[in-house]
Amino acid sequence: MHRFRAIAHNQGCFLITGDELHHLTKVLRLQRGDKVYGFDNSGRQWLGIIEKLEKDSALCRIIEEEYPEVEAKSKVYLVMGLAKGDKMEWVIQKATELGMAGFIPLRTRRSVMQLEGKKAEDRVKRWQKIAGEAAKQSRRVIEPKIEQVAEWKDLEVMLPPETQWLIAYENEKKLSFSNTLASFNPEYPIAVLIGPEGGFSGEEVREAQEKLGARSISLGSRILRTETAALAVLTMVLTYFGDLG
Amino acid sequence: MHRFRAIAHNQGCFLITGDELHHLTKVLRLQRGDKVYGFDNSGRQWLGIIEKLEKDSALCRIIEEEYPEVEAKSKVYLVMGLAKGDKMEWVIQKATELGMAGFIPLRTRRSVMQLEGKKAEDRVKRWQKIAGEAAKQSRRVIEPKIEQVAEWKDLEVMLPPETQWLIAYENEKKLSFSNTLASFNPEYPIAVLIGPEGGFSGEEVREAQEKLGARSISLGSRILRTETAALAVLTMVLTYFGDLG
Repeated sequence: MHRFRAIAHNQGCFLITGDELHHLTKVLRLQRGDKVYGFDNSGRQWLGIIEKLEKDSALCRIIEEEYPEVEAKSKVYLVMGLAKGDKMEWVIQKATELGMAGFIPLRTRRSVMQLEGKKAEDRVKRWQKIAGEAAKQSRRVIEPKIEQVAEWKDLEVMLPPETQWLIAYENEKKLSFSNTLASFNPEYPIAVLIGPEGGFSGEEVREAQEKLGARSISLGSRILRTETAALAVLTMVLTYFGDLG
Repeated sequence: MHRFRAIAHNQGCFLITGDELHHLTKVLRLQRGDKVYGFDNSGRQWLGIIEKLEKDSALCRIIEEEYPEVEAKSKVYLVMGLAKGDKMEWVIQKATELGMAGFIPLRTRRSVMQLEGKKAEDRVKRWQKIAGEAAKQSRRVIEPKIEQVAEWKDLEVMLPPETQWLIAYENEKKLSFSNTLASFNPEYPIAVLIGPEGGFSGEEVREAQEKLGARSISLGSRILRTETAALAVLTMVLTYFGDLG
């Protein structure tokens, strides 16, 4: 059955509007009486029946409200250095399926792609759309939020102070991944810093360690592309805390 | 320093030929006296100096031979249902970086893409090229072998009899991933069966369980695209056996 981002409404109903409404009427051509799923990013999901189709909204009567066990218990955020091509797009799509809590695009010293102003805003809108579609496809009930493109100095205030930071650093050879995670509290958010194509500079790693208390982790002896590293670390963290498989 | 697939030669030398030679001379324009790395898929790596550049080969004198600890100790094979678009390409590229031992493209009931004859051979050649490039980029010394497109009946004989089979199955809700892996012997090959876009049919899963002794594993409550599932399982298995991070 089709799933839509929806808005809670009075008297046991929810509303589908905007792009979602367009998709419902123009693309899927659903009709009054058809059943649909709605979710409002609060963790709940409604099974509803389309009761009224109007120009700017579809009113659906709630048949059932449920809180499916689909979201990861651990809240893992990806903070990724701006990378070229479609790398960001597909990391966001795949990471959403895997269960990331949110995504922060980061301007780094070695980022070749430097998004500014309007262009940056549009790109973030596009990324949010990709995350929304991936969330639906994977049957999640909360879409990961894609934040605006950030600078290093912004990071401290963008996530809660109790956030536990990890930084993937190819020169880190001492600390194993599991030893590091063993000291983490799964109740608190975890943010993973992933460098751009050229990786982080040594200075950036030091700053992340000093200002964010980031623990640097090795991803083993093979050199991973930035997009591969992002998905690998996310998979490793979610698996470690029992949120995958 | 640049890395090339090479061939062992007499008197402490190795040869670079074919596409690799073309890349060395035409693309990188390396000269006599330049230093390069060579590897011959045996696990060793040579540091060499270009001694003689001829039309069909570059002769390099070995300065140093080493066996870098870069390959995963556990041998994990991906067996993936033929999927559309560039999904196979990028799974092969990313899985090579992560450390897969080899890849078998599989014809499945729900595979939309049905490669046959010459077209299949050409595609496999292209996939092998992608694996070779990814191996170099990630500094591996053994390129994963991409097998010809296989049928279910072929699988038993394509990998050693002691191979331990896993099958990712979204309807598997009982068996957790780590419980299943705990019973595996990391000394023996592990093969992971990943369905095409539509997933495996129930019959295919039963056959894999009966004929290959495959253990079905859940990848959690979120629905993963086939390409995401492939990389996630590979990451989970390699991490479990200490071959990542």
